[in-house]
Amino acid sequence: MTLHRIRNLREQFSTAGIDGLLVSSMSNIRYLTGFASDERDVATVLIGATEAFLLTDYRFGEQAREQCGEVQIIVRDRARQTLGQLVRELAAQCDIRQLGYERDHFLHGRWLNLAADLDTIAVKPLRGLVEKLRRRKEPAELESMRRAAAIGDRALEQLLGLLQPGITEREAAVELECLLKRAGSEGLAFPTIFTSGARTSRPHGMPSDRVLSRGDLITIDFGAIVDGYRSDMTRTFVLGKADSKQREIYELVRRAQALGVESLRTGIPYSQPNATVNRFLAACPYAEYAGDSLGHGLGLDTHEQPYLSTGFEELLEEDHVVTVEPGIYIPGWGGVRIEDDVRLTGSGPELLNNFSRELIEL
Amino acid sequence: MTLHRIRNLREQFSTAGIDGLLVSSMSNIRYLTGFASDERDVATVLIGATEAFLLTDYRFGEQAREQCGEVQIIVRDRARQTLGQLVRELAAQCDIRQLGYERDHFLHGRWLNLAADLDTIAVKPLRGLVEKLRRRKEPAELESMRRAAAIGDRALEQLLGLLQPGITEREAAVELECLLKRAGSEGLAFPTIFTSGARTSRPHGMPSDRVLSRGDLITIDFGAIVDGYRSDMTRTFVLGKADSKQREIYELVRRAQALGVESLRTGIPYSQPNATVNRFLAACPYAEYAGDSLGHGLGLDTHEQPYLSTGFEELLEEDHVVTVEPGIYIPGWGGVRIEDDVRLTGSGPELLNNFSRELIEL
Repeated sequence: MTLHRIRNLREQFSTAGIDGLLVSSMSNIRYLTGFASDERDVATVLIGATEAFLLTDYRFGEQAREQCGEVQIIVRDRARQTLGQLVRELAAQCDIRQLGYERDHFLHGRWLNLAADLDTIAVKPLRGLVEKLRRRKEPAELESMRRAAAIGDRALEQLLGLLQPGITEREAAVELECLLKRAGSEGLAFPTIFTSGARTSRPHGMPSDRVLSRGDLITIDFGAIVDGYRSDMTRTFVLGKADSKQREIYELVRRAQALGVESLRTGIPYSQPNATVNRFLAACPYAEYAGDSLGHGLGLDTHEQPYLSTGFEELLEEDHVVTVEPGIYIPGWGGVRIEDDVRLTGSGPELLNNFSRELIEL
Repeated sequence: MTLHRIRNLREQFSTAGIDGLLVSSMSNIRYLTGFASDERDVATVLIGATEAFLLTDYRFGEQAREQCGEVQIIVRDRARQTLGQLVRELAAQCDIRQLGYERDHFLHGRWLNLAADLDTIAVKPLRGLVEKLRRRKEPAELESMRRAAAIGDRALEQLLGLLQPGITEREAAVELECLLKRAGSEGLAFPTIFTSGARTSRPHGMPSDRVLSRGDLITIDFGAIVDGYRSDMTRTFVLGKADSKQREIYELVRRAQALGVESLRTGIPYSQPNATVNRFLAACPYAEYAGDSLGHGLGLDTHEQPYLSTGFEELLEEDHVVTVEPGIYIPGWGGVRIEDDVRLTGSGPELLNNFSRELIEL
């Protein structure tokens, strides 16, 4: 089921100048082998020219045998052998002389420890080999992402009735999280962002004990997980009647967001939709308060390639999935963000989530 | 409020051979400055001989100014300056020539990028400087930990009525998580472990869609968070009447766990209580199925110093907080683990959580 992915990875070996790769990212490990864990560093994967190993310890042996049918599972006795010693042994067995490793995912100290035991094997820091493959989602991956997005839509709809003056941000966020999980989300795609009133100017504000009151802006940014695949959606509401400034800024962000979605086309640089939206926002009265990046890729990680930001010049392709999330954040007043998950197709963008983008006055 | 911690950290500088430290662990950053985030790498802290800086970006500026009264906050424009360039500038300003950094917390690639911009500043990989300070909990930290433990006790008590044949592991785990958060937990200390039947042989099994049925062992390992401080408790139940093997193994683990708690004394090596419990388990009929480590420190991280494992020879001190969690795991049959959080005092162990340790037949 994942063997074709390992084959696609191996096709990059000669260009990368390696004959083996050591994989540390739990998302990359899940993609390549099916092994799923929310804990970092509980497994490591070694891919050689013809062999593939998942290395773990006694706590995860049964799970690995159940989830990973297509790689060899090695349960290491941590008291007897270091990870580096085991990797050296297997690399010798597979005749690996140039071992690549994921520079962006190993913790520095963990890598230093491992490398110290590798003896004569040459190592090469690499980035993004597996991530590159993960950009184009397969049909089954897209299906999981649509389900995650639908869980998000429904949970937010169910939450609306609870958003009343008197409830705190934290209480409301907890209820949203319960709704997500009861609807089948495996967890939270990321810590729920829930802000109200002037706190909505914080793009990544955690829920606080602030009590919602009439006239508040409310920003909710949250995500579900299905089969490891994430959704990531933001909506901003007004509790009661919006005032004219709230309405004006909401409308600006709504137009910027729609423009961002429309700008997504295959064959253009990642950075281009961001540049288009930035031009629009730069011409508006609140230009100085606009966020600086339009969105990011989404999948097994909440932030992955492709990044819709300045400086990213690779080309968007079919079945890339990205968020589109412009925002305006005015310290002391508040902020507005609207975010959707979008799949690129040859015939235009497919919106994975469908919750209304119009201003809702609660 | 945290300045004394920064002072205690500086006292280690000369022994460590540094005149500045770059801190990357979000838990260490919270401990030293009060800045709280669940996202990694959204802030970095630089401690010099007399100055202390928290470096972040526009998304977290307001939060930092609110939470960190005692360090200088620098909001970096990521488009104009790399983190390395900013660190170099500040280090020059503070006359830092030997900069230590947290080898175990920086991601390897992030460190390589940063180091490339440091120019002539000498760097030194270090480990555990802040973690060492964090071992001995202050009264306010202990109070947060007691509250987290109490939330866990209460939530598990409330869950018991729901543990009925017909409910799935996942459904039950979700309800536990809702109970924890509604009772005031800021999040989950770690992904909830919830296994039943033969799956209880997996020490770190994630909840599955398995339906609970009469005769099942059920293992639940979970934790609450208060002010960033975690609880971590495990209980194993039997759904219905326990059979004789379930009863026998439960009783063995219960005795091992009680022995572990009694063995905790100030002034003995971290490894000693583990050795004591291992001797007890080695003499029992299921010796080969016993887990290999007794427990770990607990605080702002779910796993931190002191580690109650072979090879850790530093001495336990007053106000260290550790878990005690022996287990027996028999593949194909099931497993039992009992875990408590324990504070060391001069006059014996203080149990932070109080849920019954006797075998409960549901």
